Amino acid sequence: MKHTEQRKKLRAIMAGSKCVSPASVYDALSARVAEAVGYEVGLLAGSVVASTTIAAPDIMVHTATEYADQIRRIMRVSKLSLFVDADNGYGNALNAMRTVEEFEHAGVSGLAVEDTTGPIAYGQPDTSLKLVSIEEGVGKLRAALAARSDPSLVVCARTPAFKLEGMESLLARAKAYAATGVDGIHITGGIKTLEQLKAVHDVFKKPIIMGSTHGGFSAAQLAGVGVRILLQGHQEVAGVVKTLREIYTHLYNGGSTEDLKPRIAPPAEMDQLLNVAGYERCLKEYMR
Amino acid sequence: MKHTEQRKKLRAIMAGSKCVSPASVYDALSARVAEAVGYEVGLLAGSVVASTTIAAPDIMVHTATEYADQIRRIMRVSKLSLFVDADNGYGNALNAMRTVEEFEHAGVSGLAVEDTTGPIAYGQPDTSLKLVSIEEGVGKLRAALAARSDPSLVVCARTPAFKLEGMESLLARAKAYAATGVDGIHITGGIKTLEQLKAVHDVFKKPIIMGSTHGGFSAAQLAGVGVRILLQGHQEVAGVVKTLREIYTHLYNGGSTEDLKPRIAPPAEMDQLLNVAGYERCLKEYMR
Amino acid sequence: MKHTEQRKKLRAIMAGSKCVSPASVYDALSARVAEAVGYEVGLLAGSVVASTTIAAPDIMVHTATEYADQIRRIMRVSKLSLFVDADNGYGNALNAMRTVEEFEHAGVSGLAVEDTTGPIAYGQPDTSLKLVSIEEGVGKLRAALAARSDPSLVVCARTPAFKLEGMESLLARAKAYAATGVDGIHITGGIKTLEQLKAVHDVFKKPIIMGSTHGGFSAAQLAGVGVRILLQGHQEVAGVVKTLREIYTHLYNGGSTEDLKPRIAPPAEMDQLLNVAGYERCLKEYMR
Amino acid sequence: MKHTEQRKKLRAIMAGSKCVSPASVYDALSARVAEAVGYEVGLLAGSVVASTTIAAPDIMVHTATEYADQIRRIMRVSKLSLFVDADNGYGNALNAMRTVEEFEHAGVSGLAVEDTTGPIAYGQPDTSLKLVSIEEGVGKLRAALAARSDPSLVVCARTPAFKLEGMESLLARAKAYAATGVDGIHITGGIKTLEQLKAVHDVFKKPIIMGSTHGGFSAAQLAGVGVRILLQGHQEVAGVVKTLREIYTHLYNGGSTEDLKPRIAPPAEMDQLLNVAGYERCLKEYMR
Repeated sequence: MKHTEQRKKLRAIMAGSKCVSPASVYDALSARVAEAVGYEVGLLAGSVVASTTIAAPDIMVHTATEYADQIRRIMRVSKLSLFVDADNGYGNALNAMRTVEEFEHAGVSGLAVEDTTGPIAYGQPDTSLKLVSIEEGVGKLRAALAARSDPSLVVCARTPAFKLEGMESLLARAKAYAATGVDGIHITGGIKTLEQLKAVHDVFKKPIIMGSTHGGFSAAQLAGVGVRILLQGHQEVAGVVKTLREIYTHLYNGGSTEDLKPRIAPPAEMDQLLNVAGYERCLKEYMR
Repeated sequence: MKHTEQRKKLRAIMAGSKCVSPASVYDALSARVAEAVGYEVGLLAGSVVASTTIAAPDIMVHTATEYADQIRRIMRVSKLSLFVDADNGYGNALNAMRTVEEFEHAGVSGLAVEDTTGPIAYGQPDTSLKLVSIEEGVGKLRAALAARSDPSLVVCARTPAFKLEGMESLLARAKAYAATGVDGIHITGGIKTLEQLKAVHDVFKKPIIMGSTHGGFSAAQLAGVGVRILLQGHQEVAGVVKTLREIYTHLYNGGSTEDLKPRIAPPAEMDQLLNVAGYERCLKEYMR
Repeated sequence: MKHTEQRKKLRAIMAGSKCVSPASVYDALSARVAEAVGYEVGLLAGSVVASTTIAAPDIMVHTATEYADQIRRIMRVSKLSLFVDADNGYGNALNAMRTVEEFEHAGVSGLAVEDTTGPIAYGQPDTSLKLVSIEEGVGKLRAALAARSDPSLVVCARTPAFKLEGMESLLARAKAYAATGVDGIHITGGIKTLEQLKAVHDVFKKPIIMGSTHGGFSAAQLAGVGVRILLQGHQEVAGVVKTLREIYTHLYNGGSTEDLKPRIAPPAEMDQLLNVAGYERCLKEYMR
Repeated sequence: MKHTEQRKKLRAIMAGSKCVSPASVYDALSARVAEAVGYEVGLLAGSVVASTTIAAPDIMVHTATEYADQIRRIMRVSKLSLFVDADNGYGNALNAMRTVEEFEHAGVSGLAVEDTTGPIAYGQPDTSLKLVSIEEGVGKLRAALAARSDPSLVVCARTPAFKLEGMESLLARAKAYAATGVDGIHITGGIKTLEQLKAVHDVFKKPIIMGSTHGGFSAAQLAGVGVRILLQGHQEVAGVVKTLREIYTHLYNGGSTEDLKPRIAPPAEMDQLLNVAGYERCLKEYMR
């Protein structure tokens, strides 16, 4: 029930007229902080799952089920609508179906499946992504949609086609993917102008999801050409690392815990995030 | 093999003459940061498992197996020796045995089992801990020791007896627990003087583990009275929360990602933590 | 969505006039076999979780979260409505709330929380269960109900009060538990006559769940006094053990695999259980 | 420690002169039954993980980490040395490394990595396996060996080269794989004569693992040409399904539980498998 409502909230945002940026979260506590700040949408990126749960780079050495486990840990406690990228579905169309089923069961609100090969192929000279054929991409999206059991779950296409092959390829894919019935398209990399986005939107006719690295457009400008979700990278994780390094370094070198007071959240904030008052109410209500 | 070595390193510290403070860690990435700073010992507290993985306070609503899961995620990738508190073993002596088996299987280096009741009893007017009898405490420690399959695993007693009942109780328990063959004793709460610690050490005759809130003694002073591990609380988690709140707030209010640059770890540091060079070497060695 | 429908089916059975027996299942495959036979309701008992996933007896050495994990593995693939016992909620009322949340998130259709202490207390001379006070039992049930987020989830009381204290105690508890709003009461042990059941039903006024060991009454007779679900023990698991022992013994002693043919399910049955045709259709539809 | 000993026992068998068949197991309880019968080696096949934990056929829709989870559940309680197939390592050489790390951490004794593509490729007209190049196979095996942290872990090659390309291809691969330092080679499919096996052994010069479907040779004959482990399929799982179907059908049609007595393991056998006496001893020793 709750997850259906979270999915419907995400759908409402995508059906709306604004461009919204989600908070990049990585565990139950970070999701709670994002909620407390006011966010309604969170993002759990595959790269962030890899970095925080297995300390690995974003090269598909994590599995779909451990991604699902982290989604579950977050969604058990969070009111955020959670959007995730499901990479290329972690294999073929059957794997994409399993990934959708697992992510949905874990409580995710929306996901995107990319039209790329992966993991890195033997003999490939670099770690760059390669596009699969439009037909394969379409098949995978149709499979992903068929695997959805809650119709409110948001299922999107994702493609780096512009960056890898240019506008013509992106438009061809946007058109073919739109026909599958997906709820949106996530364009990764390369877009430089609002005209380019408008061209995609004219063909795709559904909400666009964009990465943060693309141009310096305002949310209003992006909203005007069909962008409903603007990702902003994962500064949070890198910010956490800097804080950890500084606090660890301070203590490692004999610094006092007292000196750290200005750097840490006060007990009252921690209590609020951990719902101490709620547990206290339950103790009173059910145990005393 | 690797875990046995990590356990032996922890044993060496406890058999040494210095007092060492571990880094409070909570996931694979934070453990990597602590390693990079120079730490050899990490601490994963039950309270931190509760706050980061289920966003709950430290009232035993997390389970022993989800604690084990988090230990496992850290120990798969970390070189740290990891010490954890196992609360009261999460039930009776049989549960304490299961907890030791699970934590050991997950790769933990050392753990402490406390002589307290828990979770909070029906009708209890507050959330404070209560001591079990010495006999029950001894039984649980003997059970925990029997459940250990790698003899290098460090198994300690933990007790808030001083705070709850005073020095006489603590000494009686220290003596009884020492006789079980545990590797150390973790004293929580209340200790104010080095003489008090010395009195415990004279009776216990094995390494002492102390919380950070007790007095303002130097590591050298504590080492002189038998303390080998000094915990320092979990400023890291509260520091992470403050950072997350500030970054989320900045972005939520329309702040640019560019402005965050001084607040986040640079890409090179992230790459080092995620072992990008190591993966790159493997790609070259095995796939090209 | 799917889980809500499974819960509604269970509710419909409890609101009906028949007495139904669920299939005792233990993993994804056994659940599929039960479905194929025609069952609409499955039972995953705590004792069965203990025996099949950690090879331990039913003495609460398994945790609520590993119970939830097994529920999840079953409910990802099964159309059965799944009923489980949640023992005493695995701790106090807060733990019962967590257990309900976890089990619901894992997809369970219904559960019962028992009014007993556990795990076995220090000094207890045997392994028998002890009743908690009515007040504590009521508090835990109210907590369990409050923790439910999908209102279609079936939440029941469970009590061995008759066996431990007699009819008066059972009736007092039935009355108090009914007032909490639970959906049914699971009576374990001791009941010998239909009159006894009728007496409970007259007070409780909601569906009764019974264990199989109680008398030799027909389903129709039980239905007549308010019993809607009749458990029948876990012969399946013991049957599986006998089969495994015989097949392992045969092969261990050099017997041929050919000789086992009459003892095993034919490939066509295995294919049907594993939905080979469905995967084949997906391959054709999305990948060729 | 314990897992290292289990690995050394498997190594001793492979270094010996006999051909041994493992018990095909699938969960903690089945492993206990196999032990009770006398088995020292168990096998957890990928196909069996798929069928019992996600009720799916053997087409790589399960993930490496959920395979590892099932290994872990078995190895927490079993004395068996456990051999598993790791399919093609679940991706590229980096994924194979992760798989080895996870399986080792879960407690596995030995594993084989196959030189095939997978999962099924887009446009592939059937579900048959395809060979990767020798170079890719060699790279993956070298990666798998490098990922091993306990040197006693048995790491083998696996190949269907004979079936797909004939003897010349198999010999070329056997030679190349032997040079990587793997501990054995698992040949799947097609072998018809002892001479063929001898030819492989003359080139490979290390233990051979064979599937059960290949010819009607005695264990002694196979041992004579270098086979040390002979798999025998998974009759146990199909036997369990038949038993479940019959018991479920009996009960579903109103049959009595009493009638099932001859078909189920007696309580004393269940108690022995669940180590009831051991838990009873612990209760006496630590809690009374």
